[in-house]
Formats: sequence, structure tokens, C-alpha cells
Amino acid sequence: MYKDTTIAELDQVIANSVKAFHQYKNYSLKQRADFMRAIAAEIEALGDELIETAMAETNLPQARLQGERARTMFQLTSYGAAAEAGNWLEASIDTALAERTPPKPDVRKMLVPLGPVVVFGASNFPFAYSTAGGDTACAFAAGCPVIVKAHPAHLKTSTLMASAIEKAAEKCSMPKGIFAHVYGAGFEVGEYLAKHDAIKAIGFTGSFGGGKALFDWANQRKNPIPVFAEMGSVNPVYLLPEKLATETESLAKQLAGSVTLGVGQFCTNPGLIVAVADDALTTFKSLLKQEIEILTPATMLHQGIADNYSTKLATALNQNGVEVVAQSTTEATKAQGKISIATVSGSTFLNNPVLHQEVFGPYSLIIECADEAELLAVTKAMEGQLTATLMATPGDINAHKELLSEVQEICGRLIFNNVPTGVEVALAMHHGGPFPASTDSRFTSVGADGIKRFARPLSFQNWDNEFLPDELKNENPLNIWRTVDNELTKEKI
Amino acid sequence: MYKDTTIAELDQVIANSVKAFHQYKNYSLKQRADFMRAIAAEIEALGDELIETAMAETNLPQARLQGERARTMFQLTSYGAAAEAGNWLEASIDTALAERTPPKPDVRKMLVPLGPVVVFGASNFPFAYSTAGGDTACAFAAGCPVIVKAHPAHLKTSTLMASAIEKAAEKCSMPKGIFAHVYGAGFEVGEYLAKHDAIKAIGFTGSFGGGKALFDWANQRKNPIPVFAEMGSVNPVYLLPEKLATETESLAKQLAGSVTLGVGQFCTNPGLIVAVADDALTTFKSLLKQEIEILTPATMLHQGIADNYSTKLATALNQNGVEVVAQSTTEATKAQGKISIATVSGSTFLNNPVLHQEVFGPYSLIIECADEAELLAVTKAMEGQLTATLMATPGDINAHKELLSEVQEICGRLIFNNVPTGVEVALAMHHGGPFPASTDSRFTSVGADGIKRFARPLSFQNWDNEFLPDELKNENPLNIWRTVDNELTKEKI
Repeated sequence: MYKDTTIAELDQVIANSVKAFHQYKNYSLKQRADFMRAIAAEIEALGDELIETAMAETNLPQARLQGERARTMFQLTSYGAAAEAGNWLEASIDTALAERTPPKPDVRKMLVPLGPVVVFGASNFPFAYSTAGGDTACAFAAGCPVIVKAHPAHLKTSTLMASAIEKAAEKCSMPKGIFAHVYGAGFEVGEYLAKHDAIKAIGFTGSFGGGKALFDWANQRKNPIPVFAEMGSVNPVYLLPEKLATETESLAKQLAGSVTLGVGQFCTNPGLIVAVADDALTTFKSLLKQEIEILTPATMLHQGIADNYSTKLATALNQNGVEVVAQSTTEATKAQGKISIATVSGSTFLNNPVLHQEVFGPYSLIIECADEAELLAVTKAMEGQLTATLMATPGDINAHKELLSEVQEICGRLIFNNVPTGVEVALAMHHGGPFPASTDSRFTSVGADGIKRFARPLSFQNWDNEFLPDELKNENPLNIWRTVDNELTKEKI
Repeated sequence: MYKDTTIAELDQVIANSVKAFHQYKNYSLKQRADFMRAIAAEIEALGDELIETAMAETNLPQARLQGERARTMFQLTSYGAAAEAGNWLEASIDTALAERTPPKPDVRKMLVPLGPVVVFGASNFPFAYSTAGGDTACAFAAGCPVIVKAHPAHLKTSTLMASAIEKAAEKCSMPKGIFAHVYGAGFEVGEYLAKHDAIKAIGFTGSFGGGKALFDWANQRKNPIPVFAEMGSVNPVYLLPEKLATETESLAKQLAGSVTLGVGQFCTNPGLIVAVADDALTTFKSLLKQEIEILTPATMLHQGIADNYSTKLATALNQNGVEVVAQSTTEATKAQGKISIATVSGSTFLNNPVLHQEVFGPYSLIIECADEAELLAVTKAMEGQLTATLMATPGDINAHKELLSEVQEICGRLIFNNVPTGVEVALAMHHGGPFPASTDSRFTSVGADGIKRFARPLSFQNWDNEFLPDELKNENPLNIWRTVDNELTKEKI
């Protein structure tokens, strides 16, 4: 039904995108925001067909997809509003000092869009991190045209979303080439796009293998380009002793819920639970066992994901020293994920890299450390993570200052007495983390700061006011915040 | 005199740097700024010895080095002040909404330091872009310890500067390991540092070969790290027709001065002059010839640079279709750079990649385009540049809107009727550009925004106020600008 886009077609798509870029980059911030609001309206107008199509393609339940649709629309409208407010432009102006020796020139700087962006969506968020998702919204906000490669696991959903974007583009008189939707069953289409000289940045959400391949291709180009790949992580949750002793049951309930939310198919799923072995941890395990056993397995996104979970789970459980703590007592079908919790000692974890790897699905591994020193050693040995969570009392925090310092070095978001699942769409959110959680720990893929991924600074020196972009003109016609001679202000010059 | 640092010594240096990082990252912004001010004071206290040592090692004249010393001190004090003001932290806070379904968590974000940084200085700026130069200043401001590999071309100068940093570190009670100075005649020491897992970022100023090797090593690591390599460029200067016709003589004088400033040893040296061939260009060439012929050659930084210039100049002048326009009539010695201007047609330039390469020294190539279409084609064919300059009247700008659009895509700083040499140290300065001008066009190596190169965002979710960094506490004790619920403010919460 959906034929692979040919190389000749891709060349045409890219040529259109380049042409569109030279027009769209000069569109006002308001025009960009209007376009994004129009896309949100067109998504809403898709109505039940969108939800039903996605349900059929992803096995995700209706309520979840309705929520994700709302989130997707909110991303478009709120990033549009942020684009329009202009803070992300980091506009700064240093005025001239003609009398200085040598004379100080007038220099003004703002972020400008990078150029055509290619987006690869995620299978686990068919709306919010796919065709019209966060990466696409950020690129449009920044002033970049977008080429989306449809995710093979939800082609119909992706095509519907593409039609919403195309309708909005037409209604808003966007240049031809502002958006394109291409297909490729294998990796060849993605590789061609990633290696093409006219493509200036890549957004990706998915597996380590996919993200790393894009990162390597992009860096090996004659002109390397940035790749923003969010590749998931195991998101350690620390149960510190006082908290664990005083709220054992509540922690077991919270974690049972978080590990199994969305059949464990979240990049912030808590794949590791870390604690010092003590009586409270023993109680916690038996309470968690009770919670897990009564849960019912659910169907995963597609058979490939279910097979992958099954294989990785078997590998993890077969490692020396790993013991099963609990599994759902209801048998899982081939398409479902068997809910599983296992345990291993800190020393075994330290010596087995396999146990550090993500098992994408409803699984978590409890690391039982011999003492506080081993807890710290386990932390230092961890790879980069999207999130780390401390379940702790104030007393625990005061007693674990070194852990608090070390854990900040391995994550992008540090959570206190909340579960890591649930990523708020807000400016202060950082969704990214040290490699391999993401390929560039300096940028987020959630929240309006994600717009900055697709922009770079450009300085204008000694320009007549009339030729400057509106954002940098003396009279500040857009009424945006700017740093003028080192002071933040909305004043004119 | 300066033995290569051994691998065992490097391991110790790196271990000290990691330890220092865990302490220094918690030092207040004021402590960092005080340290940087103390370094500036110690540099001043080095007095004439510093200037005389650098004169002997680099052949740069006294006045230039005195100016560069002042610039270096200004970088330290002004980046310190910027660090203290805290705008660079991009602090943002989204407050909780407990009544929402699901409840909205409190999320707060700020930039945190990356970790130990390695700096490789430039031969052409022995103070401002070397041991205590811009990269080191930015890293200290961000909260990172620094390991400098001494530049082999000015080892004594580098060692003096290192002593100034070490004295300041002692006076300010900085942690042991906050700074280290290592030596390596070959590339092995640099390679070892760049590939070491504990090193988290690299600053480099120098050749394409050196910067690209670091970039590749860093990206091929198990955990890739950012490399900020500023690798120079040819900095095209466009002479648009009305401007060229009306200010022919003044343009010839300005460009003769800019091409030969500092024996052409600036990364912003105008290596290409681009114009449509007409009578005014013919006049310009003869006026430029008069200016160039009377100039006296000067000694380059060291024999290696002079030899390299001589070789690359010969290669450039030997290309088909390249004709010499002017050379200084005074014979250059082996250590000096022969001032040279050549010319070539636009079509020849388009077909010969050799002519696109930088010839580091007092040389510039005039590209004579057949018409406006060729001018545009030449622009589209250019590599990424630190700067591009339009010498133009308002009428020229209005007649060249497509050129204005295209030229923005190839540069980091766009200059109007100024020469590109002279890089103002100011917040609005962008010194960087699309690859290969720099490895990361999104970050500057001049100006306080350079601090952001060595930092990444970290979000804190649901933390008690007492455990948050001061920058994010409710009461805003540092009185910094923060974005609270999407509004910039210094207010408390």
C-alpha cells in the first residue's frame, strides 16, 4: 500500500525543502505560530478516524491515544506560542562605541534556523513523537522545513497526520516543500536523507541502534550535522533506607504502576531499582510481588516489539545471579509482554554489562547493594540516563550527599519522590541525558527549549537598522526580550 | 626543557581533575568569578616577562601582545561577571498544579557543568586563545576544571600563563586539580586526553587537520563528547557594484590593511574578495596593487607557519587561471610571509576546490564573476565561514536580496561595511560558523555565550526547596533572571 519513496523522488523532495527554507526562514514568528495552531486544528478535525487508525496499528487503548492527541496539539500550540514570544531567539545587542580606540562596532545576534530537518518518529508515541510530534513542531517553530520518514509500524496513522499538516500548510499559504512525508520499509531511505548535503539536522526517537547509526552517518559526512537522537534508558530509581523503611507499601504500589504503565513501553520506564539490602527491602520485594502477580499482561505495540521484549527478558533472566522476584500469574500471549521483576546483587551488576542494558517493556531489575559504598559504585558504573529518581526522606538526602552529586552526572532529570514515567511538556523539562540516553545531552526533545535544537546563532555587525531582522531592529517592533549591552530588556534602543 | 607528560602522569592529572570537578561544580558563581578575576590579576603581575617571552617565541610585536594581554584579562573578568550575573544558566521553573489530572509536578531547570575540559590553544593568539584564553575562561565560568595541553610553539609563554592560573587557584583555595598544564611534542598526549572517558568536552583553536582529528576521536568514543574546534576560514568579502564604483580607493586601502594585519595570521583574515568584473573592479585592482607593493613583509609566528604559507601560496598561485595582481616589492626572508594578491574568474573558482582552501597568511584571492548569477553560484559553492562581509550601499543591498539570503547560510557573522579582522569580545559576538569553520556552528568561542559550550541542562522534579541549588530556590537568593511559568522575572516564588 505504501511504496518506498524512490531516490529520484527523494531528490525532488529535498530540492523543494531547500527552496521552501529560503522562503520560510523569513516568515514572521507569528506566521510560524499560526501555522502550528492550524496543524493542531487539523489534527483535531481528523476526529475518531485518527484514534481508531492508531488503535488498530499500535494496540494502544483509546483513552491513552486521546490523551496523546491532546498532548500533541498542546505541543504544537505551546511551542508556537513560545516561538512567537521570542525568548528562545536569545537576541542580544552590543551597541557601538565610536569614540573607543579601536572603535567598538555595533554587533547584534539571534538564533536563525539551520535548514531542512529530517524527523524519524517513535513507535511508542504514534502522535506525540512521530509525524506531527515534538521534533516536527520544534523545527517548524525554529523556521525549518521538515521531511518526515513515516514510521513503518504506524504508516496509516502517519499518513493521516501528514495530511493534517499538508492541509494546514495550504490554508496558511506555506511555501511548497515546507513539509514532506516519505516512506521506506528498510533503512536505505533514512540513510540517503541523513547523508544528503542539503539536510541540516536530524531528530530521532527510538532505539540505540537506530539513533547511533544516524549519529555516525551524520558525523562522517563531509559537512557533519547535528543529530538529536533520544535513545531511551533504564532510569534508575533509588530507594533510600529511611524512606524505604517508612513507606514500603506505598513505594511498592507506585513502582508496580510505573513499571507496567503503557506495557512498560516508555523511554522513562524504571528499569532499575537500586537499594542497600536490608529488612525493609525484603518486605518491599514481597509487597511488590503481590502487586505484580495480580496484574494482567497487555498487548505490546507490535509483534516485533513483543518478540524483542521476550528475547531480551529471557537473556536478562538467564544471567548468572539474577533471580525472578515476581511475574504476573496470568499467562502472556505471544503479542503481550510478561510483567517481570528480578533481582541481582550489586557486585554481580557491576561485573555484567548485559544487566545495564534496557529491556524495553514491563520489566525492572532490583539491584541489592551490600552497603552504601557499593550503592555509589553502582551509580558511577551506570551509563547516561534520561532520568534518575531518589525515593528519600530529607534525612536520607542529608546522609547521601555524595550519591546526590554522582547521580546528577548520569542523568538529564533528577526526580525526588515521583515516578519517572510521565514527562511534563513544559519549558523547565529536560528530556535528554548523557550519552547513550541521547546523542546530545545539551538539548531537550520535550518542552519549548527543544526549538533551539534546530537553530544556530548569527551575528550582524555594523548593519543599518533598516536591513536588520525585526527581532534586532532598534525599535524592537516585536516587543521581545533582548540582552542590550549585557542587560535583559524589552526597551527600544 | 619541557618533557612530554607521561601516560602515568596524565592518568594522575585526569584523576585529580575528576575529583576537583565534584568540588568545583558546587562552588558559587561568585567564587568562580573571583577566581577568574584573580587569574587576570596574576597575569598582570607577570609584567614584562610575559610580553618579552611571547615576543621571543612568536615574533609578534610588543604593542600587539600588550593589547592581547589586555584582551585576555578582559575575557577572564567579563566572562566571570557574566557567570555571576547568571543569565547563561537559562534557569527556568514551572510550578506545580496539584489539582490538575494528572497532577502537574514542579520542574526546575538550569545549566550544569559538563565535567573536566581539555583545551588546545592556538599559535596565533598566545594569550587570548591559549592557556589562559577564552576556552579556559569559559570552562572555569561554567564550573569545569581545565587541562591545557601547552602549544608547542610557545611553551615558555604557556608555562608562565599556567603559573599565573596556579597562583590564583592557590590564593582562591580552589580544589587541587582545578587546572593542569601538560606537554606533548606530538599528537599522542592530545589523543590520549581526547579519548579518555573522564574528559567531557574539548576546546580547540587551530588548523582543520587538528580540529577534525579531535572531532573524529571524540565521536568515535564509547561515550562521544562535544568538541568545539574553531578551524578558521577564508572569510569572503563581497564588493557590490555601487559601493565599489563610489568608494574604490577607500576599499582598496581597507582591504590592504585587513589582508596584511598581523601578517595575515588571523582566522578572520579576508582570503577571498568577490565581485562582478567591471571597470571599477579593474581600478580597484590597480589601487590595491599600489597599496600592497609598498608594504614590507614581516616575520611570521614560527618557521613552520612561514613554510606552510610559502607552500600553500605557491600551490594557489600555480593553479590554472590564477594570476598575480600584486606582491610586496620588498623580498621576503624565509621566515617572512610574502604579501600576495591574486585573481581568478568565477567559473575557474567554481571548478577548482583547491582555490576554496585557506592559505594562512597575508594572501587574498579576488574572484571576478561574469555576472550576478555567477556571484550567487560562487556563494552557494562556498564552505562554511566564520564571517562574510558585504561592502555595499543601501541600493546594493536592495538589489541583492537573494545574495543576502544565501550568504547568511554560509557564515556565523555577517558584516556590513567593516573588515572581518577584529573580533569584538562581546555577548552579541558569534565566533564560529557552519562546518568546516567550526565543528559546532551552534556555539561561539568568543563572548560570554561561549560559557554555554561547557554546560548542559539538568531538570529537578518535585524537590524540596532546601535541597535545590541556590539558582533554583523559591526565594531566588542570587537575584538572577529566571523564566517562571513562561515569564522572565527576578521575582521570588
